[in-house]
Amino acid sequence: MIHKHGGDVYSHKVRLDYSTNLNFLGMPESVRKAACEGVGFSEHYPDVECRDLRRAVSLQEGVPESSLVFGNGAADLIYAAVLADKPKKAVLCAPTFHEYGQALRTVGCRTETVFLKEENAFRYTETILDALTDDTDMLIICNPNNPTGQPLPRKLLLKILSVCRERNIRFLLDECFVDFMDDPAAATAKPYLAEHPELFILKAFTKIYCMPGLRLGYGICSDALFLRRLTEYHQPWNVSIPAQRAGVAACGEQEYVRHFRSLLAEEKTWFPDALAQAGMKVYGSAANYVFFRAPGDRGEMAGRLLERGILIRDCSNFEGLAPGYYRAVIRSREENQEFIRILRGIRTEVRYG
Amino acid sequence: MIHKHGGDVYSHKVRLDYSTNLNFLGMPESVRKAACEGVGFSEHYPDVECRDLRRAVSLQEGVPESSLVFGNGAADLIYAAVLADKPKKAVLCAPTFHEYGQALRTVGCRTETVFLKEENAFRYTETILDALTDDTDMLIICNPNNPTGQPLPRKLLLKILSVCRERNIRFLLDECFVDFMDDPAAATAKPYLAEHPELFILKAFTKIYCMPGLRLGYGICSDALFLRRLTEYHQPWNVSIPAQRAGVAACGEQEYVRHFRSLLAEEKTWFPDALAQAGMKVYGSAANYVFFRAPGDRGEMAGRLLERGILIRDCSNFEGLAPGYYRAVIRSREENQEFIRILRGIRTEVRYG
Repeated sequence: MIHKHGGDVYSHKVRLDYSTNLNFLGMPESVRKAACEGVGFSEHYPDVECRDLRRAVSLQEGVPESSLVFGNGAADLIYAAVLADKPKKAVLCAPTFHEYGQALRTVGCRTETVFLKEENAFRYTETILDALTDDTDMLIICNPNNPTGQPLPRKLLLKILSVCRERNIRFLLDECFVDFMDDPAAATAKPYLAEHPELFILKAFTKIYCMPGLRLGYGICSDALFLRRLTEYHQPWNVSIPAQRAGVAACGEQEYVRHFRSLLAEEKTWFPDALAQAGMKVYGSAANYVFFRAPGDRGEMAGRLLERGILIRDCSNFEGLAPGYYRAVIRSREENQEFIRILRGIRTEVRYG
Repeated sequence: MIHKHGGDVYSHKVRLDYSTNLNFLGMPESVRKAACEGVGFSEHYPDVECRDLRRAVSLQEGVPESSLVFGNGAADLIYAAVLADKPKKAVLCAPTFHEYGQALRTVGCRTETVFLKEENAFRYTETILDALTDDTDMLIICNPNNPTGQPLPRKLLLKILSVCRERNIRFLLDECFVDFMDDPAAATAKPYLAEHPELFILKAFTKIYCMPGLRLGYGICSDALFLRRLTEYHQPWNVSIPAQRAGVAACGEQEYVRHFRSLLAEEKTWFPDALAQAGMKVYGSAANYVFFRAPGDRGEMAGRLLERGILIRDCSNFEGLAPGYYRAVIRSREENQEFIRILRGIRTEVRYG
């Protein structure tokens, strides 16, 4: 059975987790400390307005405090945004993050799917624009896309923004992996927030600060009415105190992020190249993970890797994909070398076994 | 301005928080330790199935593991249950916990309100039954009620269950304060779960283990389809690792709960009596809080208490109430004595000032 998402270290004995897209340096010590101090303060209810966190993120992102909304992980805000808007028809790409479609189903929304094609290396193309018709209420796009690792080209982003404004389409743009890109400032849609109240950017602390167990994400939007509705549509205490404290501490860890990004920059070339040399067909790697296909494989590879203690994301349960597609996070050079060595071993075994 | 809920220690300088209904002994040390260890493990995603927690709560509550669903606090599950069922018409009492109505509004549900009357000391009466008509989809009741502190009589509970089954009405029964009652076993509707798939019991770790900042609640229901829908209608990782670990540790703290309950039993008589002697009109105190009216007061008392560092729950923003109604948690004897002393001082001041 394929686990719906990566990171299920509860069902498996895992030595190296390549299935979750996390910063391989782990959680900064200051974040861990702040979260523990937050536990000590947890005899109180959380601040429903997340005031300290709001101030820190506002400075960090360079956006007004009033444009921020916080969630119990970014995934929480996907469901909240969908509930706040109750779209009747939405446009999604495939393959992409499973929770978008799942959230849309909670309000009975009809979904039109734009299939990203293998022959285009699963890149985003202008076919998305064709799907945005007069009856479209919402568009959800992940940039760079999960699991394909392909970015949304600037030119296409601008065209989408223009159509969304014109047709009054809520544009939920998931930028949870944008900070892993080579030039996040050139990739983010933040500069267009003020002019585009229909744009809702989603971000997470989870990945870049490696704190998925604490649950903290946020959204940025200039549509005050939408943000108010979104806030009223979930419980007031949705962000725990450990998460709020961890988030404030994380905002102070920009040196750690810079250090990680410099390490990642090297691996972003090395790891995909090594995978290709090991016989894999590699697609995108704009973020901190690589999306690839194992030629001839029908889904056995994940199990064989797991026998050796390596958990990888089998992507066969993504809409628009088939067995043989995988996603692997980029880790440290030593770990990536071991991953490649074991992968090569398995491939040889399968070929001559 | 009246804060929507109690416990806002972020806007006020608070020495004694009488506004939140928490165990005055504070968070057990084992719970704090487990949550901190959970922070250390938070480089992983949470277990989406909450396996360890499920086992612990199942044993603790004496209900099947499969009948449990966990949430980011009990409030999270109110919204999830409403979204899963999407009732068109619901019955609520007033005054009661504000989030029920708020959650019902997220799906555009029409609400019929049964007003609990001052002349009945805000007790639940059979008028609830009259409101359960053929077009009712959901009934939400809090037992004992928040803020009135009045229990749901057994006889009335049985009648409600019978009507709900007959008319296919989802019965969301909030038992978050049932463990503070003198005889929780005689008060809970747990024995009727198997026969009543429409019954959804809500419980929280928040109050009895004093861990509101960690966010952990759960629901119990025998309707497997409803539970599956509810689970699919929110993100899979809704319960943080610190919360899951804290919950497991809390289940091991039954001696702490027994000790607290013995202290509470004494204060449950002393504190309401002292409030009455101080000139307050006291209504229910079945749980760990007292609901009362300050005769002649038009809402000034909360501010005057706050000037002296005591935060109390001004209940004037509850539907069905007016200025002058208050809720105070029951704390330790020393603290309650100080509360009464300060309250008396304020009353004298107001009378002769």
